Amino acid sequence: MVNDARGTLLEIREQVQSELTSYLALQREYLATIGSELIPVCDALESFVLDGGKRLRPLFAYAGFSATGLHPTAADIRAFASLELLQACALIHDDLMDRSDTRRGKPAIHRHFENLHQEQAMSGLADQFGEAAAVLLGDLALVWSDHLLHTSGVSDSALLSALSVHDEMRIELMAGQYLDVREAGEKSPSVDRSLRIARYKSGKYTIERPLHLGASLAITDKKAGQQLVNVLSAYGLPLGEAFQLRDDLLGIFGDPAITGKPAGDDIREGKRTVLMAMTLERASTSAAKEITAALGRDDLTASDIENVRSLITATGAVKDVEDLIDGLLSNALSAANSAEINPSARELLIELATSATRRSH
Amino acid sequence: MVNDARGTLLEIREQVQSELTSYLALQREYLATIGSELIPVCDALESFVLDGGKRLRPLFAYAGFSATGLHPTAADIRAFASLELLQACALIHDDLMDRSDTRRGKPAIHRHFENLHQEQAMSGLADQFGEAAAVLLGDLALVWSDHLLHTSGVSDSALLSALSVHDEMRIELMAGQYLDVREAGEKSPSVDRSLRIARYKSGKYTIERPLHLGASLAITDKKAGQQLVNVLSAYGLPLGEAFQLRDDLLGIFGDPAITGKPAGDDIREGKRTVLMAMTLERASTSAAKEITAALGRDDLTASDIENVRSLITATGAVKDVEDLIDGLLSNALSAANSAEINPSARELLIELATSATRRSH
Repeated sequence: MVNDARGTLLEIREQVQSELTSYLALQREYLATIGSELIPVCDALESFVLDGGKRLRPLFAYAGFSATGLHPTAADIRAFASLELLQACALIHDDLMDRSDTRRGKPAIHRHFENLHQEQAMSGLADQFGEAAAVLLGDLALVWSDHLLHTSGVSDSALLSALSVHDEMRIELMAGQYLDVREAGEKSPSVDRSLRIARYKSGKYTIERPLHLGASLAITDKKAGQQLVNVLSAYGLPLGEAFQLRDDLLGIFGDPAITGKPAGDDIREGKRTVLMAMTLERASTSAAKEITAALGRDDLTASDIENVRSLITATGAVKDVEDLIDGLLSNALSAANSAEINPSARELLIELATSATRRSH
Repeated sequence: MVNDARGTLLEIREQVQSELTSYLALQREYLATIGSELIPVCDALESFVLDGGKRLRPLFAYAGFSATGLHPTAADIRAFASLELLQACALIHDDLMDRSDTRRGKPAIHRHFENLHQEQAMSGLADQFGEAAAVLLGDLALVWSDHLLHTSGVSDSALLSALSVHDEMRIELMAGQYLDVREAGEKSPSVDRSLRIARYKSGKYTIERPLHLGASLAITDKKAGQQLVNVLSAYGLPLGEAFQLRDDLLGIFGDPAITGKPAGDDIREGKRTVLMAMTLERASTSAAKEITAALGRDDLTASDIENVRSLITATGAVKDVEDLIDGLLSNALSAANSAEINPSARELLIELATSATRRSH
């Protein structure tokens, strides 16, 4: 059964990939008619969108759709796939805001265009050009995600039903992103505030709203779908928080060869995660001082990172976060077994929940 | 007659202002439920959107709607008003990309949040926080513009008819913005390339597409509206280029007290405009050298600026640009007199064309 669900998800991933490939090829053709200077924009966005990514949001949209018992058409898959372009916007702008150099082992978009500026010996400042390109490529990806949803070919009633969830999701995303950026400016970390950020950025944006979007495409009568929507929230919100907590652990303990990010990346970035807030709450004054001194420094050696890791583990925060993940996962799994979920979708939801919280990248 | 048109436009401006005010108040209420940290985001966006702006794009949308002979409802006005939030995104991201310090005499959004960071003695880098806030506030304004359009209350068929124009407009905007940023990296200016940028950023984004958006809300049958759409393009595209050319002139010769920008701003920014490309094409080698040396320098004195202005005027480029504006305006005005335009809208289109090209800010 689980293997069946895994096979279905792989198949949907491939369909999402193929729809994204076709959409981006069409956009490339169109932008080329405006000017050949836009080709590098298409190249960069194609590489960014097509060369990686877990396609989590389209898969959750698919699961939300399947929870109604219906099977998606190619038009529905295109609507699900649009979420990957929104995610491209979020990541491109995120890397710019964090001043991150790499994404999935390749230069971040702003660095890529900074490099292009230098290679082509263009006039002006290379870093300013790189930043501007990242702002605009993110904006373009956001507009494209909307455009792909609108032109997906779903029925008018399905599209109208999806628009309100879609807007809500995007407002929550931007609010969550701002809270996250704002959090970095706080004097000290807070478990509560970091949990709230996890709720908006991951609980809602990554999981709950994609599930709702999928369901809204299948059930266009809002009233008829309300109970299912509630169950999907009961599944999606805890799962999203658990997903973010796994991310916190990977950001500190993840294997660079698998995550595509430098070892201990969240330490170097001084990221305000739930894990870090719990660590500092539990740490002795001297351990807290040592950890805090390392946060946000990009000159840490491998042994500095190893030292911070040990200090974090010694506080018990890692175990507590793992326990929290287990509890949240178990809540999500019991929602997946509700009567409102069509039995055909149950294994899918279980497989997705497990892979989102047990993953290594 | 002209005074009637002017009165109508003032009235629509007020209605747009009032709809934007209500929308932003609702969003403030909603974001406050997520977290009080979002209040400064609401404050900044309200001040940015409500304290200024010519409302050109909503007015052109209104004119496109009126060209069908119909009168807009409050729902239509809300749909027109959504264009101001898109424009807020464009301006916030533009100021960030250009590293401009001010907008309409107040700190640009990235500077405003940089200042907040310092005033509140927040942790981390103030400039990085300012930049991140500008990225996210621009993104949020873009999503809000979509949301206001979707929730405007126009009929489902009107909304579906508007979505494709709206998407096309936003893709053209981002493409035009990229070409503009890219142009700054070119070794030497080009009249042709700058005219193409003017076509996308102003001809299409500022005028043609808002007109089409308005018309698409009134005539939801695409085929029935095609002839009107063509006439609106014949009016809007030359007018948009003329509008941009006026902007070029104001960017160099405008009165800071009226434009809200520093004197000779485009010289200090080294902006690649049609006016500048024409100037350098026509200038003697020594004048071109002197002008080029001044471009992009932010330490220019008032007399440096005056000197560059004289050099530009001496080439004859100012007169040529004024002639070009006159020619484009005359094309726009003859399209406004086409039989496809409902007579009730003619004076509106004429008034808008005149004010867009004869303005002093």
